Amino acid sequence: MIIDCHGHYTTAPAALEAWRKRQIAGITHPAQKPSVSELRISDDELRESIESNQLRLMRERGLDLTIFSPRASFMAHHIGDFQVSSTWAAICNELCHRVSQLFPDNFIGAAMLPQSPGVDPASCVAEIERCVEEYGFVAINLNPDPSGGHWREPPLTDRHWYPIYEKMVEYDIPAMIHVSTSCNACFHATGAHYINADTTAFMQCLTGDLFADFPTLKFVIPHGGGAVPYHWGRYRGLAQELKKPLLQEHLLNNIFFDTCVYHQPGIDLLTKVIPVDNILFASEMIGAVRGIDPETGHHYDDTKRYIDAAGIEPEARYKIYEGNARRVYPRLDAALKARGR
Amino acid sequence: MIIDCHGHYTTAPAALEAWRKRQIAGITHPAQKPSVSELRISDDELRESIESNQLRLMRERGLDLTIFSPRASFMAHHIGDFQVSSTWAAICNELCHRVSQLFPDNFIGAAMLPQSPGVDPASCVAEIERCVEEYGFVAINLNPDPSGGHWREPPLTDRHWYPIYEKMVEYDIPAMIHVSTSCNACFHATGAHYINADTTAFMQCLTGDLFADFPTLKFVIPHGGGAVPYHWGRYRGLAQELKKPLLQEHLLNNIFFDTCVYHQPGIDLLTKVIPVDNILFASEMIGAVRGIDPETGHHYDDTKRYIDAAGIEPEARYKIYEGNARRVYPRLDAALKARGR
Repeated sequence: MIIDCHGHYTTAPAALEAWRKRQIAGITHPAQKPSVSELRISDDELRESIESNQLRLMRERGLDLTIFSPRASFMAHHIGDFQVSSTWAAICNELCHRVSQLFPDNFIGAAMLPQSPGVDPASCVAEIERCVEEYGFVAINLNPDPSGGHWREPPLTDRHWYPIYEKMVEYDIPAMIHVSTSCNACFHATGAHYINADTTAFMQCLTGDLFADFPTLKFVIPHGGGAVPYHWGRYRGLAQELKKPLLQEHLLNNIFFDTCVYHQPGIDLLTKVIPVDNILFASEMIGAVRGIDPETGHHYDDTKRYIDAAGIEPEARYKIYEGNARRVYPRLDAALKARGR
Repeated sequence: MIIDCHGHYTTAPAALEAWRKRQIAGITHPAQKPSVSELRISDDELRESIESNQLRLMRERGLDLTIFSPRASFMAHHIGDFQVSSTWAAICNELCHRVSQLFPDNFIGAAMLPQSPGVDPASCVAEIERCVEEYGFVAINLNPDPSGGHWREPPLTDRHWYPIYEKMVEYDIPAMIHVSTSCNACFHATGAHYINADTTAFMQCLTGDLFADFPTLKFVIPHGGGAVPYHWGRYRGLAQELKKPLLQEHLLNNIFFDTCVYHQPGIDLLTKVIPVDNILFASEMIGAVRGIDPETGHHYDDTKRYIDAAGIEPEARYKIYEGNARRVYPRLDAALKARGR
């Protein structure tokens, strides 16, 4: 079985974006604010948006199941206040839930949180509860920078974030550490902000001792861990300078990297440097890089090809494709077992 | 000959830091502001600080010449105003000049700029002129984020920066794109801010068309190019999405990566993915990662070992160690030739 732990609903029907635009307009012109019930997307529209896109590619590539969350760049937690984020998150999560109901063999949900800059993360707990208990979601996406590229919240190791971690531990769900779009002109969203955030989150964990407080907390760092595996020697050396334990002991019981690295040499490095138990298969398809690589004739984001060509032993490949995901996402494992998989 | 294009004066005598502390105190308490003449460091002190540190390690490792600039983390352009940065840059550059005079076979200068948040970069031109014309410096370090982790200046492709580029082109000197310390608690300086800045700078260049305006402008992206080589497929794919030319044509006549990547698999990836003409040997020694790697028994930052072990052809190795530096830093080449090297 091949589980893709990183998929977003980037292909939602256009009505969703139209509603969001009206919601944003409603921030300054309350008369234009739409009600939630004004957004109507039929099951057929959902089915079509998935069958002709993600599911088509999953079938072509031989992927079985995607952990599916709302479109990351559309979370835009910096827009509006908590109420705006809360309404928007609820809508987006519900759509992912409906997709998972329509295609229960192929999709299972991960929640976007109603984060808002400067707002206590405890405000997100109700949405986590709803998504896990009512929707059967198996993970959350946590945005370490709801300001959208200004980085005004404390580091992830700060007690500020503990209400979310307490809920994660209670439910035994991991968080993918995933920013949204950038409203800072310095940072291209998917080319700089995403990758920087991955590197930043890892280094925050390295300097802190968060996992002493939460030994079972689990973070998935997407996009192949940002710059981290490429600079693994630097991070081992910095941990040493900071008198931290070896990274294996200090971080690798709790931090996992996905395989959203879009060329063979990157995946080769990832699988060589990072212990196999810490690598989770993912493609972030359909996402930032949709084209076909002229050097290979295949989609850049067809990451299964790179894994298959990386010369990995079958047991290790099983872990990357399935075993690790079942371990890191226990609720996914339970849901699969309940369906006899 | 082996040229290290990335060394900072991290081992300056303690009097320098003491003077800087008084300068910083003088921002709020002008009575404490020291005069420049109060900083006295003898040639013997300079000699000792270099001979027992950088030069000792250069000899041990077989490195001939270091392009030497003021300590990056101490630039701290976010502290004080232009006048503070200007005085501080002048002092730091002069010390590097004196080192290069004391050890003319082993060190040649690169300038720190007197940048200050929100101040027109044209204000840096006089210091560039002084360093090139009086000191014989061969490059500058350009900080894309003088705010120290808040990223409030425009991207490097903005006309904001053109006065510096015009001077660089006139003198035919490259800029290493190098941030300073971070005053944003989210970013560890050497573990996140440095690497993020490298990635960010590259992506700014990718989205823009700066090198159409300045075809001979050259940027060196340090720390192995941040996350860029590891995600080279992503960047190729993003250039494609953005309808840019191939990276080779769009950026690689103007952008170069150093080899400050502190483990063998990272250097293997760098030398495999990035054309050899775009790789410059560097160690950033003595810098952020000073320890000995328990996995190899050698210093993490002894990057020559990784290059030597990377299975590179002799001609390519010559380019990385010497040839590319002579091409990217024409004033270095001229200075070497003037000394019969």
